Amino acid sequence: MSTLGFIEYESASPEVRAVYDDIRTTRKTDYINNFWKALAHDPATLRRTWESLKQIMAPGALDPLTKEMLYIAVSVTNQCGYCIASHTVSAQQKGMSDAMFSELMAVVGMANETNKLVTGYQVEIDERFRK
Amino acid sequence: MSTLGFIEYESASPEVRAVYDDIRTTRKTDYINNFWKALAHDPATLRRTWESLKQIMAPGALDPLTKEMLYIAVSVTNQCGYCIASHTVSAQQKGMSDAMFSELMAVVGMANETNKLVTGYQVEIDERFRK
Amino acid sequence: MSTLGFIEYESASPEVRAVYDDIRTTRKTDYINNFWKALAHDPATLRRTWESLKQIMAPGALDPLTKEMLYIAVSVTNQCGYCIASHTVSAQQKGMSDAMFSELMAVVGMANETNKLVTGYQVEIDERFRK
Amino acid sequence: MSTLGFIEYESASPEVRAVYDDIRTTRKTDYINNFWKALAHDPATLRRTWESLKQIMAPGALDPLTKEMLYIAVSVTNQCGYCIASHTVSAQQKGMSDAMFSELMAVVGMANETNKLVTGYQVEIDERFRK
Amino acid sequence: MSTLGFIEYESASPEVRAVYDDIRTTRKTDYINNFWKALAHDPATLRRTWESLKQIMAPGALDPLTKEMLYIAVSVTNQCGYCIASHTVSAQQKGMSDAMFSELMAVVGMANETNKLVTGYQVEIDERFRK
Amino acid sequence: MSTLGFIEYESASPEVRAVYDDIRTTRKTDYINNFWKALAHDPATLRRTWESLKQIMAPGALDPLTKEMLYIAVSVTNQCGYCIASHTVSAQQKGMSDAMFSELMAVVGMANETNKLVTGYQVEIDERFRK
Repeated sequence: MSTLGFIEYESASPEVRAVYDDIRTTRKTDYINNFWKALAHDPATLRRTWESLKQIMAPGALDPLTKEMLYIAVSVTNQCGYCIASHTVSAQQKGMSDAMFSELMAVVGMANETNKLVTGYQVEIDERFRK
Repeated sequence: MSTLGFIEYESASPEVRAVYDDIRTTRKTDYINNFWKALAHDPATLRRTWESLKQIMAPGALDPLTKEMLYIAVSVTNQCGYCIASHTVSAQQKGMSDAMFSELMAVVGMANETNKLVTGYQVEIDERFRK
Repeated sequence: MSTLGFIEYESASPEVRAVYDDIRTTRKTDYINNFWKALAHDPATLRRTWESLKQIMAPGALDPLTKEMLYIAVSVTNQCGYCIASHTVSAQQKGMSDAMFSELMAVVGMANETNKLVTGYQVEIDERFRK
Repeated sequence: MSTLGFIEYESASPEVRAVYDDIRTTRKTDYINNFWKALAHDPATLRRTWESLKQIMAPGALDPLTKEMLYIAVSVTNQCGYCIASHTVSAQQKGMSDAMFSELMAVVGMANETNKLVTGYQVEIDERFRK
Repeated sequence: MSTLGFIEYESASPEVRAVYDDIRTTRKTDYINNFWKALAHDPATLRRTWESLKQIMAPGALDPLTKEMLYIAVSVTNQCGYCIASHTVSAQQKGMSDAMFSELMAVVGMANETNKLVTGYQVEIDERFRK
Repeated sequence: MSTLGFIEYESASPEVRAVYDDIRTTRKTDYINNFWKALAHDPATLRRTWESLKQIMAPGALDPLTKEMLYIAVSVTNQCGYCIASHTVSAQQKGMSDAMFSELMAVVGMANETNKLVTGYQVEIDERFRK
């Protein structure tokens, strides 16, 4: 299941329960992902990670769906199966259509290709792109 | 400059010039990035890459700015300096504000962190996220 | 099981058996990991890899447990499921507590995050950090 | 220098100055790394990243020098030049000798090699390493 | 099976069928890999990817088997399980012997190791290797 | 130049000189790459790495030029600037033409793209590709 196993709500410490409660309230669901139940062995990291994620993924200059798609782009590039599976569902719930998903994939594939072409050809950065 | 050097418009074959012309028309600028000038040693790859990029980055279910930000997310995850430099400028030209850039970076950083936490803890994919 | 299958002790050549014997003696266990049984199709690589690993992971300026944790840090960053699974068990056998594991994960996650933030922001290396 | 430039202490907002002050106090130095001066354009990310880093890198079940070496292991695997440069200096200041550095590098190199061998040979995880 | 499911020949649109037909003709087999059946939800990407792959993997200055082995080298470095599995079979069908596979793996492992050693030691590029 | 600096032949220990001598003899050149001069601070790793490299890159079931191109494929995928620069020169010296280089790049780019497409679409491995 996970290196240290999962901590369920019923057997969680008050500190962990408080995070679980906040996840449930924020996400409007009773479901707690395996990720959080695995992290709960380290309450400090659980809290820090959840607080950071909540803050970062909230609406801001970018909308939550765009943020989910950026998350997927990173997760695919890193070949993280869990992250792709969970954030794809999450993006779909926030309104990602099949057409949007397909375009997202096409961009991610293309970017990975040109990243390597430019590096392999040892292309120097254009003067106008330098800081 | 680049492994095989750059091919400038003046010394380019008609086949390469045709791609350069299309880049200039499509992007409404006379400037040809070093990337294309390096790729021009292989006209087939130059054409294929440009045609694919033009098709993929065009407006569709996702708007061009979102696509540029996805490109940056991939390029940062791959640590591709050239790609980050050129696509950041490109995204700014398409309207990415400093606030949008900062949120983009925060999401990319967070996704890279949780990708590794979930992998390191060997978290099994939740049944509900499986296909 | 593996691309070329596993070679068991009973059907191994003398050259492979000699490596298996050394693994058993060094690790004080009869168990031979799948990794070695897969590599055994290439006795030269089997011997070279085992000899290198034995030399590198031995006590030196760094203790064996620290080395195991470094191995995990790399394996998590590379998203190598097999390596994470085997080296986590190995580190636990050498004394890694759950608290140590959790801190290891927190550092690995954080490093992956800041690696991308610094790259994404295109931060120039401080003069004082240059060689 | 960096995508959005650096924010120096003199021109920083009170919110940013508070973080800079804490960095100076915690690290017992007046010097603020370029990384923080680049991040300061996004005070929320600056604060969150610094607070997380301070918490994670503090002495705990693992000592600060081990944590620095883990940071280097990740940064090398990610090919992050800035991170390698800054954390190598940091580890040296915390007592990493040349011999420790060399062993660290040997482990990182070896882990990257075997990560790929095991993946390339498609080796199935041993039953005893499964969770 | 895949995020959007597979599209079988029988239920495919004429546009998708045309690509499937070309795959079958080119590869001299009736079998369509899962990859193509997953991509078929996005006919433009299906066509573009297939056309590019067909062009790139055709005999040229490099022979098809060498190209398959390069594909494997990349896929192993990226830890892409699907790609390793499918291209290993493909390379074997094109004549890759077990000895060739083992040498391929040894080179890939070694390159991954020295890539990190050179980066970790922050080795400056030799003047003679610069463009 | 490098974290610990370079060790030149003149100031090298007999153990290091022996490796340098073997590099010179094997490669038929007086030039010692910066990589070896940086590694020389750790004679055991210098010797082990050189011996492994010499063995792995020697003619076998695969010819030396193919091996150099595989090295480049890995180095590009890892974004290792030093490795790309040095192995590109090395491959050219062994006969890699510009046309071969361009095809190599095209395959590497394509493989990186499809690696991500297949992962992003969460495509299950075909039964016939499983071991």
